Amino acid sequence: MLFERDQNGVEASGGEGKGVVRVDKVVFGGPQVVLIAGPCTVESRNQLLDIAGAVKEAGAVMLRGGAFKPRTSPYTFQGLCAKGLEYLAEARAMTGLPFVTEVLETAHLHDVAQVADMVQLGSRNMHNSVLLRAAGSCGKPVLLKRGMSARIEEYLLAAEYVLQGGARHVVLCERGIRTFETMTRFSLDLNAVPLLKERTWLPVIVDPSHGTSVSRLVTPMARAAVACGADGLIVEVHNRPEQALCDGKQSITLEAFAAMVKGVRDVAEAVGRTL
Amino acid sequence: MLFERDQNGVEASGGEGKGVVRVDKVVFGGPQVVLIAGPCTVESRNQLLDIAGAVKEAGAVMLRGGAFKPRTSPYTFQGLCAKGLEYLAEARAMTGLPFVTEVLETAHLHDVAQVADMVQLGSRNMHNSVLLRAAGSCGKPVLLKRGMSARIEEYLLAAEYVLQGGARHVVLCERGIRTFETMTRFSLDLNAVPLLKERTWLPVIVDPSHGTSVSRLVTPMARAAVACGADGLIVEVHNRPEQALCDGKQSITLEAFAAMVKGVRDVAEAVGRTL
Amino acid sequence: MLFERDQNGVEASGGEGKGVVRVDKVVFGGPQVVLIAGPCTVESRNQLLDIAGAVKEAGAVMLRGGAFKPRTSPYTFQGLCAKGLEYLAEARAMTGLPFVTEVLETAHLHDVAQVADMVQLGSRNMHNSVLLRAAGSCGKPVLLKRGMSARIEEYLLAAEYVLQGGARHVVLCERGIRTFETMTRFSLDLNAVPLLKERTWLPVIVDPSHGTSVSRLVTPMARAAVACGADGLIVEVHNRPEQALCDGKQSITLEAFAAMVKGVRDVAEAVGRTL
Amino acid sequence: MLFERDQNGVEASGGEGKGVVRVDKVVFGGPQVVLIAGPCTVESRNQLLDIAGAVKEAGAVMLRGGAFKPRTSPYTFQGLCAKGLEYLAEARAMTGLPFVTEVLETAHLHDVAQVADMVQLGSRNMHNSVLLRAAGSCGKPVLLKRGMSARIEEYLLAAEYVLQGGARHVVLCERGIRTFETMTRFSLDLNAVPLLKERTWLPVIVDPSHGTSVSRLVTPMARAAVACGADGLIVEVHNRPEQALCDGKQSITLEAFAAMVKGVRDVAEAVGRTL
Repeated sequence: MLFERDQNGVEASGGEGKGVVRVDKVVFGGPQVVLIAGPCTVESRNQLLDIAGAVKEAGAVMLRGGAFKPRTSPYTFQGLCAKGLEYLAEARAMTGLPFVTEVLETAHLHDVAQVADMVQLGSRNMHNSVLLRAAGSCGKPVLLKRGMSARIEEYLLAAEYVLQGGARHVVLCERGIRTFETMTRFSLDLNAVPLLKERTWLPVIVDPSHGTSVSRLVTPMARAAVACGADGLIVEVHNRPEQALCDGKQSITLEAFAAMVKGVRDVAEAVGRTL
Repeated sequence: MLFERDQNGVEASGGEGKGVVRVDKVVFGGPQVVLIAGPCTVESRNQLLDIAGAVKEAGAVMLRGGAFKPRTSPYTFQGLCAKGLEYLAEARAMTGLPFVTEVLETAHLHDVAQVADMVQLGSRNMHNSVLLRAAGSCGKPVLLKRGMSARIEEYLLAAEYVLQGGARHVVLCERGIRTFETMTRFSLDLNAVPLLKERTWLPVIVDPSHGTSVSRLVTPMARAAVACGADGLIVEVHNRPEQALCDGKQSITLEAFAAMVKGVRDVAEAVGRTL
Repeated sequence: MLFERDQNGVEASGGEGKGVVRVDKVVFGGPQVVLIAGPCTVESRNQLLDIAGAVKEAGAVMLRGGAFKPRTSPYTFQGLCAKGLEYLAEARAMTGLPFVTEVLETAHLHDVAQVADMVQLGSRNMHNSVLLRAAGSCGKPVLLKRGMSARIEEYLLAAEYVLQGGARHVVLCERGIRTFETMTRFSLDLNAVPLLKERTWLPVIVDPSHGTSVSRLVTPMARAAVACGADGLIVEVHNRPEQALCDGKQSITLEAFAAMVKGVRDVAEAVGRTL
Repeated sequence: MLFERDQNGVEASGGEGKGVVRVDKVVFGGPQVVLIAGPCTVESRNQLLDIAGAVKEAGAVMLRGGAFKPRTSPYTFQGLCAKGLEYLAEARAMTGLPFVTEVLETAHLHDVAQVADMVQLGSRNMHNSVLLRAAGSCGKPVLLKRGMSARIEEYLLAAEYVLQGGARHVVLCERGIRTFETMTRFSLDLNAVPLLKERTWLPVIVDPSHGTSVSRLVTPMARAAVACGADGLIVEVHNRPEQALCDGKQSITLEAFAAMVKGVRDVAEAVGRTL
């Protein structure tokens, strides 16, 4: 398998070290814990620029934001689409932060890959082998989120589809699994971090926002993720969480984000990494 | 919501009764329990014609068979594609049975809808809102399988995406959920049958083959499905299960299928239906 | 293992046939589907006698009723205890129906076993090996419910503890497992019925009341249970479900029970059994 | 409810601070992360004394060891019982470490409470309300492990049973839940740590050994537990894991434990605590 540690690690990552994935100046899988932040959804130009500026100042090295949104109900906000991509590019120009955004269908892959620095495949598409393979040949690094009920083995095989498409720049992301617990929408499964890291050379990051669905849990779980070896975090931040068009309950404020960064930095240093 | 029983039942189904979906001469949601059978995957012309003839004789009213296969691993057989569709059409011509086959991507929808009698959206694509909506406007009835960890509410919202696309001919299908049990690959969740039927006017069928992944369980669970109100069954049958290219463990033999039909017919009659 | 089908079936059940367990005149594992009914909890003499008379008339052959109740919260009604046992004995005298009731601790085993016809070990105690072994030597047949997250293998090993205690009269009972679904408190797992029956000679019954926690699902799931091979049903019936002190939501009325019996009888006959 | 943070915090813990539980000189819920270590099962005098000496030297402040073992199968080793308690007392005398050990039945409570410093109620007994209440009045602090499929709410209600028994010295312990993942026996649910801590004043510790069942995951998950706020850890350590009579796969060696302590100490300091 292409994802496997021993056989493919060094070569697969282009000879520049074990399991390193580069997105612009950002390096996943190196000593630095990569901090990605931004709103769940790009809602307006102002909203995005505000948040982008603030998360950069607080320490984020990459921006996230949804232009095309996968929603459970067809009656909820589905994203700004092309306009959202445009604002993301503007936020990048303003802050210097590269950005990752989700692609929902092969028809959009080319357009998104032309402007985004990294293409995200969401939890709901982890089993969508057609999209996986197409994303693998889009020319940009891929952030592949774990399916909400995917076993580790199945998740790695999904990564294999992307790698088969030609990409060598794939980053994995634990984002919560379905369990019997009802206090949270999903249960963040941190066991996946060390389990994945012993099977694959691909970097592994964690999404404590979707992974718990409760903003109060984001900071403690972000700290825990770094403590058990995560190579990065992807966090939902909103300037007005109570007015967010999507997933407001799990977004943290700009102030909370700045405080979180400080706490996570201490833990990163405690495990021999930087932030 | 379009899927809801009271508001949309009669009208939505075109005024011809409550929640009836027609595929050629086959009626889902009427007094007859619809029996769909066939191989997991179309492997060859001979294999398909053999099986099609036998399941028709045993009592099936519709044929199933995969031409495009969604597989967990990229290294397993992915289907005969266009050639598979051709054999399915030939089997239909030979037996008179309409057929349902899965579509994995919007790019194939048009081609498949031109030849198939019913388009299947699989478990791995239940959250793929782009494909759901596209399938809803393809002009053919849609068989929408439940996601392997989808709550009833989420499953109904997925159906809403298809209905929004324009289709009024949507059939639901329980096909096993993910649980902690390890003796079976999935746990067939028959509670879904009465739960779905009280929420929606859409017909509900059951797949005891994928739903249990164990051939020995197919017949007892098929009987149970009909006993709790399922409007149909979709069963994997193979002429040589031990040589099947896909999911042989859960396929039953032609003889076992014929025996199953007899047992299911008795249960159907006990609950006031026919087979 | 004592629970296994081939090695211990015939002998273990005392030479009187394969896997038959007798409780007074009631035979579990024979051609007749055993119907046990009664209130979740014995609330008063009048309540119990009313219900006992009605379920007997509707076709039940055994009575159930909790005297000692295992409750999630210490602030909910915990049962009438000794007084409850007394009323159960009176209901038996009146109707001729033997009764089963739950035991929560070894200290009560002797007292309960002296008066009850069958001792129930509940889901919450399936892993309580001390109680399992003690119940196995109490001299009365044992009804062992499946733990709410017990794998089939673990459930059989729990039965082995009881069998090791000396009992040969053990009946298994599927009663719902924990899943991610939130519309029901538990998900009745009917796959367990054929899975258990192929591994063990012990009779297997189903509890559709606790198994679904929703009274509207009791009848369809009771039919399904019998269709896939259950040797019996244990159903919660209440004369005034809306006033029940415990689990009213899952109890069915006396009228619903009588209707259920009729429907289940038809299914039982369809699978070659009687009720 | 007695377990709730606001109403009962200060008083409940005897006025000596918020949510502090004392076991000899060990303080749960204070600035120090409590480190409990020892073998899964007491196998012999030599084994226990060897391990006890080594874990003390490495930094443990409390000893664990099973004398009475709850086992899934009746044919596996069930513990040394009274002899095990004797060896634990000797290990305490030798090292000065207080010890915690599990009680399986009310009949043993008095004997165990006389010699042990803290009484453990295991995952399989979390729903055993009789034992919970009895343990609450045994006079010793109680370590209550979470049931393997208990929701947070149910877990807190189980603690309420113990508190109702009279005890004010209850410590909670997350120890892994049942999910669909098959690479580990359980999935350690660290979300429980911040969720429990916002609902209750009771200290919360984590068992990364049972919680993952894989020794290679113990150290990363121990670090993560402390990073998200755990008040302590309980870890299985064995001098010869490959020869352990119970749970050898999840036990770490004496050397690995010493290394783990170092890593955990760094994380503890990063979150403002000591070890």
